[in-house]
Amino acid sequence: MRDVAAAASVSVKTVSRVVHNYPFIRDEVRSRVQAEIRRLGFRPNGNAVGLRQTGRPAGSIGVLAADLADPFYAGMVSAIEQVSTARSFTTLVASSGEDAERERTLLATFVERRLDGLIVVSADRRHDHLRPDLDVGTHIVFADRPPQRLPVDCVLAAHADGARQAVEHLLGQGHRAIAFVGHSPAIHTARQRLRGFRAALTAAGLAPHTVRTDALDTEAAHRATAELLAAEDAPTALFADNPRLVGGMATAIAESAAPRTALVAFDDSELAGVLGVTVVAQDPRALGTQAADLLFSRLDGDHSRPRRIILPTTLVPRGSGEGRGVALRATRS
Amino acid sequence: MRDVAAAASVSVKTVSRVVHNYPFIRDEVRSRVQAEIRRLGFRPNGNAVGLRQTGRPAGSIGVLAADLADPFYAGMVSAIEQVSTARSFTTLVASSGEDAERERTLLATFVERRLDGLIVVSADRRHDHLRPDLDVGTHIVFADRPPQRLPVDCVLAAHADGARQAVEHLLGQGHRAIAFVGHSPAIHTARQRLRGFRAALTAAGLAPHTVRTDALDTEAAHRATAELLAAEDAPTALFADNPRLVGGMATAIAESAAPRTALVAFDDSELAGVLGVTVVAQDPRALGTQAADLLFSRLDGDHSRPRRIILPTTLVPRGSGEGRGVALRATRS
Repeated sequence: MRDVAAAASVSVKTVSRVVHNYPFIRDEVRSRVQAEIRRLGFRPNGNAVGLRQTGRPAGSIGVLAADLADPFYAGMVSAIEQVSTARSFTTLVASSGEDAERERTLLATFVERRLDGLIVVSADRRHDHLRPDLDVGTHIVFADRPPQRLPVDCVLAAHADGARQAVEHLLGQGHRAIAFVGHSPAIHTARQRLRGFRAALTAAGLAPHTVRTDALDTEAAHRATAELLAAEDAPTALFADNPRLVGGMATAIAESAAPRTALVAFDDSELAGVLGVTVVAQDPRALGTQAADLLFSRLDGDHSRPRRIILPTTLVPRGSGEGRGVALRATRS
Repeated sequence: MRDVAAAASVSVKTVSRVVHNYPFIRDEVRSRVQAEIRRLGFRPNGNAVGLRQTGRPAGSIGVLAADLADPFYAGMVSAIEQVSTARSFTTLVASSGEDAERERTLLATFVERRLDGLIVVSADRRHDHLRPDLDVGTHIVFADRPPQRLPVDCVLAAHADGARQAVEHLLGQGHRAIAFVGHSPAIHTARQRLRGFRAALTAAGLAPHTVRTDALDTEAAHRATAELLAAEDAPTALFADNPRLVGGMATAIAESAAPRTALVAFDDSELAGVLGVTVVAQDPRALGTQAADLLFSRLDGDHSRPRRIILPTTLVPRGSGEGRGVALRATRS
């Protein structure tokens, strides 16, 4: 502030008044001070003015999510924010859009902006490029997907176990012709779910009715389901690999000749709740809370060996997996 | 790097090798260099190592949204990211959770972390505290909700017009007993929608059947709808003030004695699509794109007067507003 005062040939008090937007300052003086503020890139700091009249955060953490439009990550981020806010930290979020290169650029931005710690849902297959950042004291916790060749904490859900739970539930209802609808398992978590699906059937001495890995979105899942149910030897039960497929699959079931076809989906959603779709649910808030707790324990000075926390999934029966079908009727004319 | 080398009594080359994780460095030397790196807070920079092996962003913009778990803001943010990524900028996002104090802290964090520009969905009633930041060259664009006493660009949707559009559509279908279900209009946009709802009925010489402003979430909307439809003089049509109420309202309609009660909701959602709910939709992606375009034009040096862009809404008829009811059947036993 002193530099600005000197450059504008006014008192520090006058600079302060301009910055605080006091009235009764001559326009000419105000303009001169503002010009010097801009020229010198002066930023009022400390407990001075403007934004800083309010509580200063103790620090900031960064969260890199795969996709902010996915309610799962939105729930995870919200839980992280809650922990972080309770510690008077702010939370800045970015999304990679499942693009590994963009992920690296965003992580670089977080490091450059000197965030105190990072929680990462990684779309990348390698993470050793983060080692230098660990070495200089950046704390990183992986969530939802495990780190590769990087000694950091992580919190994961039991994806294989969850898929197994879904299949065992359907087997318990008497189903033997169970089909998988999902997408190509390039991502760790999707691979785990398909593995659990197969393992549960194998354990029961069965093979999958069908494994469709071409359902990238709800429209593709609608098509895949319609094709499966139109076949002579149609499955009696379907496993939806992720909640984004539920709308298309439920609609296809409602429109089919077999509207009581069973459906169990991995992960919960508002749509699944309204449509009465049975799900095996991860707890995105627990994932976020645990990841944030780990990160803050590291920021608090915990130097113990990296931990890996696996969270269980929960079966939520709502009717679609118990013989009542989906609560949707076809409206197409 | 030179400081680290001097402090650890090794060559710059050795520091570089430690930072790059080269093998064949004695553990003792590696530890000494790492200790100095930590002590001096050294960060490899420029086109050196680690995260920076990949493309450096040209800069970063910050987005403050009211609620990241709301798909509307997720869509807006995704469109902003697209514009920003095309300009080689990264996008950092934070959410206020509709808390004005948290909003101020987050904006302070954005400014402190020296982001180049901000797009703000504000939960605050006053924004003059941002003036000092404008004065020192921070570019700010408001989205979704207008700025108060702050000369900055903003992009808004035509909320009053949208609600009017919904009511006129229902009037056109012959409805005269139309009820509003929403929440207390403390927020600018909600006030505008209620205003448009009333204005359209007044223009037709009618009064609202009921205005319920106690539907804060989908459960409350379920209760409010069930009560409305159980009354002797039930409305024949309902206007849902926001997409978060659609699940509860559609379920209550399906469970009621009048499952053909008309429903038109403000804003689109996946749920509305699957349930066949007619909506008046804003375009969250257009909102994000326009806000980002405005911000980048300012970053490019456009000093013209602040602009206010109003985006129109679109009516999407799907059956629930045209006599076919919602595509949901009651499953409660």
